[in-house]
Amino acid sequence: MTTQTDVLIIGAGPVGLFAVFELGLLDLKCHLIDILDRPGGQCAELYPEKPIYDIPAWPIISAQELVDKLMEQIAPFNPGFTFNRMVNGLERLDEDGFRVTTDENEVFEAKVVVIAAGGGSFQPKRPPIPGIDAYEGTSVFYSVRRMEEFRGHDLLVVGGGDSALDWTLNLQPVAKTLTLVHRRPEFRAAPDSVNKMYALQETKALDFQVGQVKELIGEDGILRAAVIKGPEGDVEIACTRMLPFFGLTMKLGPIADWGLNLHENLIPVDTEKFETSEPGIFAIGDINWYPGKLKLILSGFHEAALMTQAAKRICNPGERVVFQYTTSSTSLQKKLGVT
Amino acid sequence: MTTQTDVLIIGAGPVGLFAVFELGLLDLKCHLIDILDRPGGQCAELYPEKPIYDIPAWPIISAQELVDKLMEQIAPFNPGFTFNRMVNGLERLDEDGFRVTTDENEVFEAKVVVIAAGGGSFQPKRPPIPGIDAYEGTSVFYSVRRMEEFRGHDLLVVGGGDSALDWTLNLQPVAKTLTLVHRRPEFRAAPDSVNKMYALQETKALDFQVGQVKELIGEDGILRAAVIKGPEGDVEIACTRMLPFFGLTMKLGPIADWGLNLHENLIPVDTEKFETSEPGIFAIGDINWYPGKLKLILSGFHEAALMTQAAKRICNPGERVVFQYTTSSTSLQKKLGVT
Repeated sequence: MTTQTDVLIIGAGPVGLFAVFELGLLDLKCHLIDILDRPGGQCAELYPEKPIYDIPAWPIISAQELVDKLMEQIAPFNPGFTFNRMVNGLERLDEDGFRVTTDENEVFEAKVVVIAAGGGSFQPKRPPIPGIDAYEGTSVFYSVRRMEEFRGHDLLVVGGGDSALDWTLNLQPVAKTLTLVHRRPEFRAAPDSVNKMYALQETKALDFQVGQVKELIGEDGILRAAVIKGPEGDVEIACTRMLPFFGLTMKLGPIADWGLNLHENLIPVDTEKFETSEPGIFAIGDINWYPGKLKLILSGFHEAALMTQAAKRICNPGERVVFQYTTSSTSLQKKLGVT
Repeated sequence: MTTQTDVLIIGAGPVGLFAVFELGLLDLKCHLIDILDRPGGQCAELYPEKPIYDIPAWPIISAQELVDKLMEQIAPFNPGFTFNRMVNGLERLDEDGFRVTTDENEVFEAKVVVIAAGGGSFQPKRPPIPGIDAYEGTSVFYSVRRMEEFRGHDLLVVGGGDSALDWTLNLQPVAKTLTLVHRRPEFRAAPDSVNKMYALQETKALDFQVGQVKELIGEDGILRAAVIKGPEGDVEIACTRMLPFFGLTMKLGPIADWGLNLHENLIPVDTEKFETSEPGIFAIGDINWYPGKLKLILSGFHEAALMTQAAKRICNPGERVVFQYTTSSTSLQKKLGVT
């Protein structure tokens, strides 16, 4: 079965979601595909509870709340979503438009393709510990979706960057015990966070160990302890949950094979339409590049608005596009369901 | 007395306000000058109570609420404001930077000037009625700041565009009586609004008269009635408040004399830094032009962010600018007062 849509959007992060709004105002129907299991992209996956301060007119908003507000804003346009799928095929049709296929062989046909894939499909780096995969998803986690899931656990946090230190400080109040392990006493994380961690160690509220995890002890995915190789030999530390923060690998995936003149894994676009080197394929948000580019969510919003004008001309050639404001246009307000 | 600042921003509308936030994150101090008597620009002046639907992550927000949220967001950076002033002089100093003067002879010196003046200093068009100026500000108003100020009045709305029809429909429930006057029975306003108005006329909830206002009757600025010249002769209509909506005249003002290579009253900029033809002078928001430009508030926000990188290099030459995120940078969070 082939799903037909005006615009196929690859990536359902904040920028892909807002593109639905701008395209919807011009009557273009959207379908989004994302490798994650829900909308929000990196915001929802990596730091849903973290506050963001630089969304205009939101002095503070959590990443999850940002996603929720965007979902509410685009609801009138009723976009289609396909989650848990990697887009792996993209071909130009003989007639106008594109055929897009997923790793589960779903087929989509669209007049316009918008790549809003952020850093690509990102994956946490797995630390080199034998047999760690047997504990992933049950006792070993690479991100914190809900802090409550760690309440009352003996927690082992591994790493020396901002994620490791931030989550050490954030989870310490809910953990039964918390041990931070890093291979040396110096950290890449912000000095302020490191100072706070050492202060908590002083009061025995947490334990910091220099060393590397060399072995996990447990069975059937249930972790019981970890063996740390430290400067004075091996130490066994009881733990029921482990959070390794070794950074993320961003994988551009099949997009790299679409002939888009990539530059350092980014897709060059113009600043008038945010179109790639392939007519009809646009790239917005963190995945694109142009002179002055900043990887800000708000820039992706702007890019979505300008891309929309060009997408409309492709989807409805010859139709006159009148630029209207939601504040004053009754016809736009009807589309939004507010009149 | 001369006020020194890093960045002088001309215009305190939403885009000028958000620029304070982006510049503040990079430790640049801002001062804003606006011709109006408070922040918000066109949003606060022309339609404070109107809902806006296309601010990302705000499914609905009134213009005044948007301004309030932006003021809250920039509060940590404590910008200077000078209201009720027209900037009329701009000269480049022999040393670096600029001297800016107002129509009240205040003097400002800044390393960078950002023009965020929207459509310039806009003024409502005055209808050609003899002696109307004697009633302005007491009985005749060109905008609605608070609907409550019109409650219980005999109201005369004049005009045939969206503003006239929108305010006819919005004020009808609070007015004692409401008469709409337009020179012909056809309207430029949205058909839906016109239909609603005619429906209210059917039920006698308002009165629509074809004609033109030729005379105002009253004394000491207190309006009592207006004489309408209609197709069947003159009619006197009792009214205590009159709202003429004859459109706005945008006046670029002295900016036109600053040698910025204007094009149809807009200031051409590049899309990397949003700098004008004069180094050190930037233009963001509705007043600038580049290929693809849309006069959207969200585009002005993006332009403010990219401009800031260039402004920083001018204000602190040689200093390395590290691009950081508010979500993860402790130093940015300190500036925002949230850690």
